[in-house]
Amino acid sequence: MALFAERGYAKTTVGDIAARAGLTERTFFNHFSDKREVLFAGSDQFVKQVVDGVRAAPKSQSPLDAVVSAFESMNDFFEERRAFSRKRSALIAAHPELQERELIKMMSVAAAVTEALKERGVSASAASLAAEAGAAILRVGFEQWGQDPQDRSLTFHLRAARRQLESVVGGAKGRTARSRARRVAG
Amino acid sequence: MALFAERGYAKTTVGDIAARAGLTERTFFNHFSDKREVLFAGSDQFVKQVVDGVRAAPKSQSPLDAVVSAFESMNDFFEERRAFSRKRSALIAAHPELQERELIKMMSVAAAVTEALKERGVSASAASLAAEAGAAILRVGFEQWGQDPQDRSLTFHLRAARRQLESVVGGAKGRTARSRARRVAG
Repeated sequence: MALFAERGYAKTTVGDIAARAGLTERTFFNHFSDKREVLFAGSDQFVKQVVDGVRAAPKSQSPLDAVVSAFESMNDFFEERRAFSRKRSALIAAHPELQERELIKMMSVAAAVTEALKERGVSASAASLAAEAGAAILRVGFEQWGQDPQDRSLTFHLRAARRQLESVVGGAKGRTARSRARRVAG
Repeated sequence: MALFAERGYAKTTVGDIAARAGLTERTFFNHFSDKREVLFAGSDQFVKQVVDGVRAAPKSQSPLDAVVSAFESMNDFFEERRAFSRKRSALIAAHPELQERELIKMMSVAAAVTEALKERGVSASAASLAAEAGAAILRVGFEQWGQDPQDRSLTFHLRAARRQLESVVGGAKGRTARSRARRVAG
């Protein structure tokens, strides 16, 4: 991150990164397939913790509750890295090739969460919808957390994003109920 | 699609495709950046129609209603191509490199829909959540449509996926109301 700030992401080479870290390029490539990957080093661990969280969730929790709780369990991890996370997010936002990689990582979270939900007996389509709803909550909650001038917690922003998603998705119910009422009234 | 069925996707080359279509490879590359792209030829047009649909939606429609209505307007287009769509979906499901491309295309739909909703005055986070909820409905609805032994319409399956998403996302409300009731009762 220091090198990217000094030289710009595009101008930083794997050779530069290896040298700064006191490694050979060969050792770098033992750990990362390319330059982009250094920004996603923790993502396998993240997926694992989220999946473990979903598996450990009480059976009484709804699929989406299980997913959001699993994200919330990462709160302290991210709080300790807020400054780093902000720099990383700004870098990703500025480079389409990084956005693409981020998207694929996010998709692997959704795919792993879908499988973990199916293990809990959730139907394939409900598991997929809950995983994608969770991914949307994570993306928006994480973004709001990164930009919050009041530095409120990730858990706060995940819950806010979830309420907003409930409002967005539930919007038609009110409308349908109203138009049904109108039909009945008419 | 005929060539992919005859030779398998992996063994079909751009040269094979160009020859079958009576084109030079050079002409192929004027239209497609690589072999994968032939399977996503209509996606820019799809994004454009969905965005036009969102822009044309009555101002009284909720953001998610506007998005789902725009998808529903593609019903006849896809009904005419159900057999082709099934083959295409099976091919994509069998090749991770195609899944990745599909994912990136789907993300470009969500990004374009987010912008179209923001033009309607929807906040950035609500627009993003509605676009991603819409993308989840499209993905699940489209999959169910492709697999339906009863050949019900895409619109039918989009509406079913939407109701299921409402149930998945709204799940916590009931729970919260119940636990609140328990607290009050206790």
